[in-house]
This record gives sequence, C-alpha cells and structure tokens, in this order.
Amino acid sequence: FNPIIDGDYIIARGATDDKGQLLTHLKALEAYHATGTEFPINVKLLIEGEEESGAENLANFVKENAEMLKADIIVVSDSSQFDRNKPAVTYGLRGVTFVEIKITGPDRDLHSGGFGGAVPNPVNVLAKIIGSMHDDDGKITIDGFYDDVVEVSDWEREQFAKLPFDEDEFRNKVGCKGLHGEKGYSVYERLWSRPTLDVNGIKGGYQGEGGKTIIPSWASAKITMRLVPDQKSDDICDKIEKYIHKICPDYVDCEITKHGGAAAVVVPTDGPWLDAAGKAIKTGFGIEPVFIKEGGSIPIVGTFKNVLGVDTLLLGWGQNDDNAHSPNERFSVSDFHRGCYAGLALIDELSRVKA
Amino acid sequence: FNPIIDGDYIIARGATDDKGQLLTHLKALEAYHATGTEFPINVKLLIEGEEESGAENLANFVKENAEMLKADIIVVSDSSQFDRNKPAVTYGLRGVTFVEIKITGPDRDLHSGGFGGAVPNPVNVLAKIIGSMHDDDGKITIDGFYDDVVEVSDWEREQFAKLPFDEDEFRNKVGCKGLHGEKGYSVYERLWSRPTLDVNGIKGGYQGEGGKTIIPSWASAKITMRLVPDQKSDDICDKIEKYIHKICPDYVDCEITKHGGAAAVVVPTDGPWLDAAGKAIKTGFGIEPVFIKEGGSIPIVGTFKNVLGVDTLLLGWGQNDDNAHSPNERFSVSDFHRGCYAGLALIDELSRVKA
Repeated sequence: FNPIIDGDYIIARGATDDKGQLLTHLKALEAYHATGTEFPINVKLLIEGEEESGAENLANFVKENAEMLKADIIVVSDSSQFDRNKPAVTYGLRGVTFVEIKITGPDRDLHSGGFGGAVPNPVNVLAKIIGSMHDDDGKITIDGFYDDVVEVSDWEREQFAKLPFDEDEFRNKVGCKGLHGEKGYSVYERLWSRPTLDVNGIKGGYQGEGGKTIIPSWASAKITMRLVPDQKSDDICDKIEKYIHKICPDYVDCEITKHGGAAAVVVPTDGPWLDAAGKAIKTGFGIEPVFIKEGGSIPIVGTFKNVLGVDTLLLGWGQNDDNAHSPNERFSVSDFHRGCYAGLALIDELSRVKA
Repeated sequence: FNPIIDGDYIIARGATDDKGQLLTHLKALEAYHATGTEFPINVKLLIEGEEESGAENLANFVKENAEMLKADIIVVSDSSQFDRNKPAVTYGLRGVTFVEIKITGPDRDLHSGGFGGAVPNPVNVLAKIIGSMHDDDGKITIDGFYDDVVEVSDWEREQFAKLPFDEDEFRNKVGCKGLHGEKGYSVYERLWSRPTLDVNGIKGGYQGEGGKTIIPSWASAKITMRLVPDQKSDDICDKIEKYIHKICPDYVDCEITKHGGAAAVVVPTDGPWLDAAGKAIKTGFGIEPVFIKEGGSIPIVGTFKNVLGVDTLLLGWGQNDDNAHSPNERFSVSDFHRGCYAGLALIDELSRVKA
C-alpha cells in the first residue's frame, strides 16, 4: 500500500475499497476525541482485511462474539455515492440463492442420425425448462416465487424516480444492444427491489470447433436468483426444485443441487437511523443524499442482522468509477475529506436517535 | 489387415466395414465369370478406402468422371441386416443440415447482482429460443419446416410395423430413462422417416466448478436437423434462420451461421430395383428381407443421386453388433457366404429389370 497523491486523487490499491473509507471513520473519531468532549455514544470498531479472499473467519467471529459486538446500529462504508456530488445512503441489498440442474438422457453421447427422434435430447429438455422460467413480460413463472416479495413502496418509487437515468448511457456502459427486465418497473426498481433469475453458465454436448452430430448424454446449468425482502433463500430453492420436477419430462433424469444463499437485507425506511445518516451526510457533504439500494449482496450485513439482530447503515463516500480492485484504484481527496466530516457528524446524529 | 477365423467369425478391423462386404461382390463376380457364361449386365467397380478419414476425394472423382460412371443402378454394401437372420434392403437415408446460433448480450460478463434485472441474459434468451423449437407433441415449430416432408406412406408404415420392436430393450441399449419423439409416429417412423432437430452442443457463461454470479456476455448452440424427402438442406437452413430472427428479441445480438448439409436420399419403393434386390436376398439368404431405412446419412449416396442421377441399393450383409471400427470387429462366415450368394443372384435379378 503505497498511496500517491495525483491532483485530487489518492491512487493506490485499496484507496477506496476499503482502506480509504475506513480511515474516514478513524479520522472522525480522532477529531471528536481531540475536542476533549466526552463521546456521546459507545463506539466499537470491527476491522477485517479478508473480504476479498472470502471473509471466511468474520462470520464465525461475529457468531462467537455476539455479546461483545452488541450494538444499536452498525455502520459500514463499503459502497459508493450514487454519482459525483450525489452522496447516498444505501438502505438495502438483494439476497441471492444458487441452484444447479443437470439433465441426463442416454448414458453416453449417441449418433443423432441413428437415434434422433426416439431418444430425448437433454439440451433440448434443459432449454425448454429454462426458457419456461420467464414469461413474455419478464416475470418469473416459478410457482409461488413472488409470494413473499415486499412490493416497491410509494416512498421507494419516489426516491428512485428522483435519480437521473440515461438509458443510452447505461446501455453503452454495459455494451448491450438493449435493456430488458420485468414489465411495470423502472430500471432502478428492477435492479434493487425486484427479484431476478439468471443462468450464470450452461453446458452440454460437443463444445469444440465445427460440428459433431450427437445427442449429448447430459446438459447442465448454474442458476442464481437475486432475492428481495421477504423472500427466503431456502424457500426459493425449494420452489425452483418443485417447479423443475413438475415440468421436467419423466423420460430424462433430473438432478438438482441446491446451494442455498442469503436473504436480502434492508434498513427500515421508517425508522430513525436512515434519517440520522441522511442528516450526517447533508452536514458532511453539504448536499442532500439520495436513498438507494444495491442489487448485489454483502453477506456480512446479513450476518449482522441474523446473528446480532442489528441493522447496518451502508454509507459510501467513494465513486462507482474509482476502479476498485485495479492497480490504479483511486479515491478523491475531496470525497475523503467530506467522508471524514460526514463520519464526524454521524457521531452526533446517532447520539440523538431515540431507538 | 490380418483376419483370424474364430468359430463362425472372421475377426479383423474392416471385417464387416467394409472389406468383407466388398469382397462378397468380388466373389460373386468371380463365380459368375467361372461359369463361362456371358455377363448379362455391365458392371463397373468403384472401390475407395478413404471413407473413415473424410472421403474428401470420392465426390470430386464422381463429378470429374460422371460420364465413365454412368449406370442404371448403384449397389453399396455398407449397411447391416436388420437383425440376425433378418436381412434387409435399406431404401432410404435421412439428410442433415447444420446451423450455429450465437446470442450476445453485454460486451463482457457482468455481475448478476449489479445488473440482473436490467441487462438481458443471453443464456436465458438462447434457452427460450431453443425451448420454443418443439411443441408439447414433439413437433418442430419452425415455420414451414414440414412443408416439403413426404408423409409416411401406407406401404412404409406397413413395412416398419412388421419389424419387431421391444421398447425396454431399446431403452436399455441407449441407457435412457424413457423414449421421446413426435406424437403420432412409431419409433421406426420417427427414426427413419421423420425429420428431427437436436442441439448437439450448448455453451455460455461460467463453465467451472462452483458458482460465479455473472450475466454471461454470450451463449451459443450447435444444432443439426435430420431431413427427410423432399426437404432441402438450404431451404431448411433459411427457415430456421428466419424463425430465430423472428422470435429473438431485439435487445440482444443474434448471429446465425448456416453450414448447410445434405438432402435425404430414397430409392423409389414403387420401382423395379427394390423388387430385384429383395428377390436376390431371398435367393442368397433363403429368407425374405425386410425393407428399412436408416436415420443417418451416407453422403456419397446423395452425390451419386445428384451428380449421376442414379439411385443406390443399400444391401447390408453384416450385423449391427459386428463392432464396426473396433479392433475386435467381426463378420460372420455364414453372413459372408450368404452375401456372396445374394450378390450372385443380384447379377441375375438386375439383368431382368426393365428400367
């Protein structure tokens, strides 16, 4: 870790993810301490450096030290601002669940001339199953999939609608001809507050160059679903398993491996914590923050909620284009300073919360 | 080539495919010649030893020597009897055509948490396209796919119905839980006289162990269709291309590569040639032959038809379980002798045909 200052940027691996953001809180505590004033809240610091290599020990540490870690609220600065000069409070993350399907037809690859028409083709069968999982409106067709989904609230819809969105810019950023998602929802709603089902990988049959006229013996797919409150990972795994068994024809073998996952997390938007975080950001950045969610998962936030029963405020001071994980990762000096001020103001704001 | 005689078997690579079967015709000609009788027909011998390594030169040779090869009928003994003591005349082969589809969404793999719900997933799209290509009755849904298909005739249906079929035995042979094909047709009809569509290989996204939560950039599939008279390979390629473009959503890129293929071939069942072949087999084997087709293709037979305009009699003296291509390939001495007699009788029978 050898940071270089270049103009307004601190450049170093970890500058924004997550040494720089962590440092803002240490600086805030140091500044508060320097005033000689008594701390208005108890602060516990939990610092780990293992996230990018699996964070295998942190969850166990939390479980084994639940008493010591007891708290009213947790603050994690591992996210980003929404955009330049648009600081954000991230109040929710989607969960995830993971299943694998393997369809087996004949016990070896067969000649498609000699057997095509009588022996079922597992790739065709798998494609039909996966193809049936979305209807023409982009809705997931698995029975009961939406049973526990908490609908996008008016407040949430309003927050997301305030955010700028340029479809062409977004499309160009991902290099895709067009966008597609569930009918009836905006892109932010789809990304943050609606569940999804994506095949992450599929394979079966001949994979090389040119042709090989076979009926493959098997085909398999890895599927993850992003979950939203109050969907439960195990329940969704069970539902997809039941659905596949229901529609999979009995002339092939079907093997489903459920890997489970994590539930979505959300900070109650009607509680005092979001309000306190918003005020602290307003003070630190001089700008009213936006309220957003993220489509991915930060598993430890779910662990905090499940093990300690405590919500997490996700306060990001960096930017989406800070090149996290790259050698030229950067963190704006201005954002660093504003983050320090926001962290300082947060101590004060949290002390006023009557939980 | 070092044949060993073991009981009733000649054991050697090529014993039945195809040195042994070829030899029956040479022996028949030799025997006829030994009688001192004048040959009642003109015979031209075309022998090639390159089939298993692509037969690249034979088609060109046929094209370049069409005049020299002019004939009324061609005889190829490269197939099998239907079963033990059930000699067969194979009067048709399916054709084949080959296309590849590639669907591209984002220009790189994306995080399924960050983008799932807004960015289209090419594996999901490809699965939906492939899944839509068959309806619940096993019929192919591509517009116009069956337009030129010659229906199974009453005569054909009758021939196939005479053949023994044990579903459990067939199922066990291919190691599959069940059989599946187009509704309304028997297994032999499906295998020999109905067209099919099989995915030979599919791939896209993460292929390794465990999970990787991505929206893959692309997914691709290799598809072959088996064709029957009078479907044309190029026409079917065009139809599948049109179909895919029709149903593929415009938010992804779709690239179709048409590799073409070969049309099905069939010997007219109402002409005199099949009759002559049947009689010759009856004489040589002492058993009435069955009339069957094969689901695969022997491309040179199509070349003979297209270039020379001549039909081919496919007369097989071997068995399906002669282990063709294996080191322990074998050919029954009895079948060899019966083949020689049938070849001899064929000279006589063909001389009586008034084409």
